[in-house]
Amino acid sequence: MNYRQQSLIKHGEWKGKIETVCRVPVDSKDNLSLAYTPGVAEPCMAIHADTEKSFELTRRWNTVPVITDGTAVLGLGDIGPEAGMPVMEGKCALFKAFGDVDAYPLCIRSKDTEEIIKTVKLLAGSFGGINLEDISAPRCFEIETRLKEELDIPVFHDDQHGTAIVICAALINALKLVGKDKAKIRIAINGAGAAGIAIAKFLLRFGVKDITVCDTRGTIYAGRDGLNPAKIELAKVTNLRAIKGTLADAMNDADVFIGVSVPGCVTADMVKSMADKPILFTCSNPVPEILPDEAKAAGAYIVGTGSSEYKNQINNVLVFPGLFRGALDVRANTVNPEMMMAAAQGIASCVTDKELSREYILPLAYDKRAHDAVAKAVAKAAIDSGVSKLAKK
Amino acid sequence: MNYRQQSLIKHGEWKGKIETVCRVPVDSKDNLSLAYTPGVAEPCMAIHADTEKSFELTRRWNTVPVITDGTAVLGLGDIGPEAGMPVMEGKCALFKAFGDVDAYPLCIRSKDTEEIIKTVKLLAGSFGGINLEDISAPRCFEIETRLKEELDIPVFHDDQHGTAIVICAALINALKLVGKDKAKIRIAINGAGAAGIAIAKFLLRFGVKDITVCDTRGTIYAGRDGLNPAKIELAKVTNLRAIKGTLADAMNDADVFIGVSVPGCVTADMVKSMADKPILFTCSNPVPEILPDEAKAAGAYIVGTGSSEYKNQINNVLVFPGLFRGALDVRANTVNPEMMMAAAQGIASCVTDKELSREYILPLAYDKRAHDAVAKAVAKAAIDSGVSKLAKK
Repeated sequence: MNYRQQSLIKHGEWKGKIETVCRVPVDSKDNLSLAYTPGVAEPCMAIHADTEKSFELTRRWNTVPVITDGTAVLGLGDIGPEAGMPVMEGKCALFKAFGDVDAYPLCIRSKDTEEIIKTVKLLAGSFGGINLEDISAPRCFEIETRLKEELDIPVFHDDQHGTAIVICAALINALKLVGKDKAKIRIAINGAGAAGIAIAKFLLRFGVKDITVCDTRGTIYAGRDGLNPAKIELAKVTNLRAIKGTLADAMNDADVFIGVSVPGCVTADMVKSMADKPILFTCSNPVPEILPDEAKAAGAYIVGTGSSEYKNQINNVLVFPGLFRGALDVRANTVNPEMMMAAAQGIASCVTDKELSREYILPLAYDKRAHDAVAKAVAKAAIDSGVSKLAKK
Repeated sequence: MNYRQQSLIKHGEWKGKIETVCRVPVDSKDNLSLAYTPGVAEPCMAIHADTEKSFELTRRWNTVPVITDGTAVLGLGDIGPEAGMPVMEGKCALFKAFGDVDAYPLCIRSKDTEEIIKTVKLLAGSFGGINLEDISAPRCFEIETRLKEELDIPVFHDDQHGTAIVICAALINALKLVGKDKAKIRIAINGAGAAGIAIAKFLLRFGVKDITVCDTRGTIYAGRDGLNPAKIELAKVTNLRAIKGTLADAMNDADVFIGVSVPGCVTADMVKSMADKPILFTCSNPVPEILPDEAKAAGAYIVGTGSSEYKNQINNVLVFPGLFRGALDVRANTVNPEMMMAAAQGIASCVTDKELSREYILPLAYDKRAHDAVAKAVAKAAIDSGVSKLAKK
């Protein structure tokens, strides 16, 4: 029996992967009077006088909704809000287990950008941060951008930035092994949805100069047909050599391939065409763009995938629990690039030079030390970049 | 130090009265693969094929948001969504402690009826039922009515129906003590907001015939000035004797007084003007309409209040945990009058004839037996009245 079949049975037994519990005694008249009426009137009035007190007198300081519209769930596509719930619940379970964050799944019955933005804004007073999840591109860009502008709590779209951060962490360590300089490498990315675009932008910020992104129609370049606004922006800062061609053209002589696309789109010949000691991060899930054995046979030096089936799983589970832990701990009012870069460095730093090998470039997803390292790095970056409300006090 | 001062300190120590916990193991590759990717794809697809499966494969079967706009929090009025959070969290704590329901507080930053309805509808796929809380009248009527019509899960506005149910339970037992027939008594109600109107309607359904409701301008009767649509409806079915006057006129010769209004509005003379063995449920919180000692000195036979400071606390904590427990257990698609009446009878039945006294007409709020009795009674009523989705299977 495979994971999927087993998982269905387990989900039927579990009947929910998270649970809300009571943290206070309510078993006597006195206790009820403190946790509820009449005593509760006093903390209410304290928050009424100063809304910031909601972070001290309620659970708000530690709460993050995992919000989806169910349009881009895993590799399953637009399966609807209710069907997305097992993933959102799973995410909440991981938030708690690895970051001690109280996350809560909210699946929205709308695909309308404005309705989703409105809904999240109306609920934002109940939460310490917002995690957007599995919302399809290009709507996810507008939704995240607007919410970041209009809210004063951290907003994070995991499919974009979680993926970009963990890819960057993997790249940091892989480059150590191959002894190449980030400023001199060529990277080919396949997939120009939420993840692909975010990865390209983040790696540019990291210091990579030469990145070419492909979508289903080939390389993305300025002036090409069929570019949405996000791709038009991307074309301005990528594809320096103005390659007009296919993925094979983009991969020719590339040092790194990053796939957030579909199984089977990379061939052995494409790998053979890459530069010396090629690095491949084939993150299509659950089946990678090329199977690791095949890639290695064709000369791949380091292979990472999105799957737990192979070595070097590149999993954004390494990012979001610690990132929000750090952001919440210092009451960051946003998630800025400094915090995201700190998260990538934090993850990478968890693999010591002694441990680092072609088969072990990232910590395991359930390695508590990695999550703690991310939390610490993100909290420090939030303070250093001036977005911590606690540090300002 | 009083409850309110102590409560503020406790809330600062607690930093949240509820918490979201992880119920599944995620500490190994295998466990992660079952609770999250790749295994989780299978329960997602099962729900995609049949939305009803969301009640079997996720926590939806046991989840209820406690939703407010912060406009009528306790007796504090319109203090805003964030300031309402301590009450909503408290409610969630009680939901869990007494009903084993996973409740979650959602405070909405809007007072617009349509926006609130829309928000709840967009989120309804994440929940097994909806608890509306502390939303001011008359908006609460429209919001509840529309959501009941448009959703196929139980929707319950606690301030209306929770209060009505527990008042009815108190009345059932009080009438036993005074030996009066519900069909022959006269009731005066002060307060024509959400609670007062719901109490009047529910007691009519219970079998009381003669009810007169007062607002701040006196008795409510057909054709009076200043009636909102809800009061116009109420005027059609109450005040049989067409009393045009003050609260004192309504209380004259009344067997029962029910106050959901303001402290101090009932005088000793008003109590003296009531019929033999008067029953007073003075539920203004935290200070009742007349203090129990004063009421008793004026001849009150049975006194109940909304406060835990006195005997006979009339607390809707006795209602909502068991009511939702019962409704969720049988997958009721609504909360109908049959289920609410069963809840009232269930609460009343928890005081045995031997226990029943003028000082003990209701079980204590933290008496687990009462909550269990409510749950059982509500589940049975849902099945008997044909609204249980499980029973239909």
